[in-house]
Amino acid sequence: MPEKEVSKLSIYNSLSRKKEEFEPINPPFVGLYVCGPTVYGDPHLGHARAAVTFDVIYRYLKFLGYKVRYVRNITDVGHLEQEETEQGEDKIAKKARLEEVEPMEIVQKYTISYHKGMDLLNCLRPDIEPTATGHIIEQIALIKKILDNGFGYEVNGNIYFDLEKYQQENDYGQLSGKILEDLQAGSRDTAGIDEKKSPHDFALWKKATPAHIMRWDSPWGEGYPGWHLECTAMSLKYLGNKFDIHGGGLDLQFPHHEAEIAQCRSAHGHDPVNYWVHNNMITIDGAKMSKSAGNFINLDELFEGRHEKLAKAYSPMVVRFLILQSHYRSKIDFSNDALSAAEKGYNRLMGAVALLNELKSSPDFSDAEGSLDKEILDACRKCNESMNDDFNTAQVLAALFDLSSKINALHNGQLSKTDLSKNALHEMVNTVDQFVFAILGLQAESTGEDGLTDELIELLIEIRKEARENKDFATSDKIRDELQEIGVRLKDEKGGTRFEIDR
Amino acid sequence: MPEKEVSKLSIYNSLSRKKEEFEPINPPFVGLYVCGPTVYGDPHLGHARAAVTFDVIYRYLKFLGYKVRYVRNITDVGHLEQEETEQGEDKIAKKARLEEVEPMEIVQKYTISYHKGMDLLNCLRPDIEPTATGHIIEQIALIKKILDNGFGYEVNGNIYFDLEKYQQENDYGQLSGKILEDLQAGSRDTAGIDEKKSPHDFALWKKATPAHIMRWDSPWGEGYPGWHLECTAMSLKYLGNKFDIHGGGLDLQFPHHEAEIAQCRSAHGHDPVNYWVHNNMITIDGAKMSKSAGNFINLDELFEGRHEKLAKAYSPMVVRFLILQSHYRSKIDFSNDALSAAEKGYNRLMGAVALLNELKSSPDFSDAEGSLDKEILDACRKCNESMNDDFNTAQVLAALFDLSSKINALHNGQLSKTDLSKNALHEMVNTVDQFVFAILGLQAESTGEDGLTDELIELLIEIRKEARENKDFATSDKIRDELQEIGVRLKDEKGGTRFEIDR
Repeated sequence: MPEKEVSKLSIYNSLSRKKEEFEPINPPFVGLYVCGPTVYGDPHLGHARAAVTFDVIYRYLKFLGYKVRYVRNITDVGHLEQEETEQGEDKIAKKARLEEVEPMEIVQKYTISYHKGMDLLNCLRPDIEPTATGHIIEQIALIKKILDNGFGYEVNGNIYFDLEKYQQENDYGQLSGKILEDLQAGSRDTAGIDEKKSPHDFALWKKATPAHIMRWDSPWGEGYPGWHLECTAMSLKYLGNKFDIHGGGLDLQFPHHEAEIAQCRSAHGHDPVNYWVHNNMITIDGAKMSKSAGNFINLDELFEGRHEKLAKAYSPMVVRFLILQSHYRSKIDFSNDALSAAEKGYNRLMGAVALLNELKSSPDFSDAEGSLDKEILDACRKCNESMNDDFNTAQVLAALFDLSSKINALHNGQLSKTDLSKNALHEMVNTVDQFVFAILGLQAESTGEDGLTDELIELLIEIRKEARENKDFATSDKIRDELQEIGVRLKDEKGGTRFEIDR
Repeated sequence: MPEKEVSKLSIYNSLSRKKEEFEPINPPFVGLYVCGPTVYGDPHLGHARAAVTFDVIYRYLKFLGYKVRYVRNITDVGHLEQEETEQGEDKIAKKARLEEVEPMEIVQKYTISYHKGMDLLNCLRPDIEPTATGHIIEQIALIKKILDNGFGYEVNGNIYFDLEKYQQENDYGQLSGKILEDLQAGSRDTAGIDEKKSPHDFALWKKATPAHIMRWDSPWGEGYPGWHLECTAMSLKYLGNKFDIHGGGLDLQFPHHEAEIAQCRSAHGHDPVNYWVHNNMITIDGAKMSKSAGNFINLDELFEGRHEKLAKAYSPMVVRFLILQSHYRSKIDFSNDALSAAEKGYNRLMGAVALLNELKSSPDFSDAEGSLDKEILDACRKCNESMNDDFNTAQVLAALFDLSSKINALHNGQLSKTDLSKNALHEMVNTVDQFVFAILGLQAESTGEDGLTDELIELLIEIRKEARENKDFATSDKIRDELQEIGVRLKDEKGGTRFEIDR
């Protein structure tokens, strides 16, 4: 049991549909697998939400003292255009055809683009980032096992998973709540047109057409793996035959994760995962994000304000903050209003963090317990308890805002520093530091990486102060006005002049 | 034939040991394969030199109008500790054992570290970055072909390349100039102790010991590929059975590249590559870089000045500049003196670039041909010709320094702007822009990414000017002195006050 835990961590398990206390299989080790991107386009808000969600879960598990192995795959083959029916071109092969390059050039280009976007959002890189094309042998071995156990069949060089056979002793639909019979009934019309025994049987291996570039030799001829297969092969390879947490977007619950369970159960006779965790979806101005609706916003368009839906650019930390303001199981609507509110919230929080840094060296705090102590310590405790309550970052931010108000009031003199004990101050400093930076993964947005900006502004503030003392108001006003023009606002306060930079 | 070429590009071919005119197999396409890192440690100066060398070659080929596919591999299995004898532990498996993690966690950690270092050096990412573990199937297929053609043999689950058989109709040693018989004679002592027919026979497939984690099934039992195999399998997969340019460090010429030629010839009956290009090695203070000599400097130690050999930190662009100051086939010695001289050279060049930007909008230049035109146009031409002469970046920098002197003299009034035609100015502006940024890949080092730094300093310069006009010398001196203290030097010149920031 890690030391730092106060209450116990509980996680909402999509499989049981309830919150469960978290018990790792082999503490202090935790295995975490998250479905990564199919790298055929630039990352967008959907990618951002999933990445930030599981980044915070990864960070928090490490904060609790667990040794986490975080595996997130790169899908670089096998993901077809029509996911449900498994028809159409491979997404990466299609993009390669359109851009007139080799498929692996598409993979390289958009893997770099994905990493860049997630780095800007301050998401830690996973510990292992396996690719589907890099694990063809493991996938073929898994298919063999499924075939040996009687849960697959071959037709014309394609291998399908036999859902009817599986259903005899298992429950396909257990995770998503879908009922196989209803599904089959709903798609009866298409049942006859393909070679599958049953319309929801999914492909384990697809025969390559002559034009298909991405192809490998297999016992069933040249082809490529089905989309659901890679995650089973790679998660089990790197995390063991049964592991702790599997994450992904809610849109992957069916059929992708359902198929993963079926593949593992039919190969190994047991469930692959103890806790299934799904982040909810995003909407844009209330509508589903889609290319046809014209509300499909890439991260770089967002960060640079290059999209007709956007009133301005929003920084990576503002996007991260907006994502964290909701619990990961709630929907999030991205709109200019929501982004603009998140920007204000983020700036307010980071402003308080900066003030706390000034406060902490003040000698005015009390040695004895103060009247403010309880409220402060309660807010600190709430941060821990909210994270333990299924990673409720929304509640953590609420508690941090309680602390921010106190910090502002202590700074302004509306609250007296003598009402706060040094102990409570220390606890607040620690909590803010841990939760804002280490756990929520927020960071101050750089406004001058060389560190010169602050020093130059401080010099201007000093010159202005002297000018005012010399009654040279022309100069002092000029400094204030010209700074204002380039986005630096001076605030004259009791203790001196502070500045804020518009981001 | 690309349009922009003036003279023809010639490349020193290690195979023929002479400069040859470059003729791509299938213009305008060019295939370029470069041996990448074995990712078991942080990148160091040796990595930097190879990456910068081939980055410039890639950039220049693209500048000439070629459509280049640049493939650089990541070695994540099969590279053993004793390279020549192929003994010892797998480098990645060993590091994984020492760090108590799974080998693929080592791969992930040091791949990220390598990318970060090369990004800082402003090396463009290759178009495809294949991994050895991601191409086991292709490597097994290649071994089968070599075995089918009679150039390999199996002993105890290991497959070796049969050099004696190969030598009957081929010339192993052709690239490196080594003579197989001499090699065999030199290592006769060890011939009896292993299972190989001949001591220089190299492994195509190694049987995995029970403790070996990285293992795959093969027709010869569980094992892993030999180190030389991956580059042949991956270069031919992505660039075709014969391609244009293969690059790497001179230390890879033997046995690695020699083995690549042998593997391709025995599998396909022809040489894999038209032009073999090798960059020379680096030394540190005159000595070979090695961990035992204590002069092993990682890039981040260099960039942060964290090594006892270093007087201070040197920025990525200074390191890049130092590498470019030598032709890629010459040795480079890294020392504080050399780095410090490179820093001055880099700053001088970038200073001239900045002045040229001011000059180019000046109305004073002549419409008619001027007396300076010839010298300027000659220097511009020399940039092109030097690159065409086996990518001689040292000569390009010399020509750019000729231009820099002219730019400084024009700025200072030592040369008259009326002596230069607008045409020649335009040519100079273009050449400097293309060669400094697009081809040599240098960039201005950021001193304030938000762009505020310049504006703040300009405001201070203006306040100082007004103070001087008002004879308030206390203020004007204070501004100059305090700026000096934070590394901003003001220079009062005829046209006004300029500033320089110490990097």
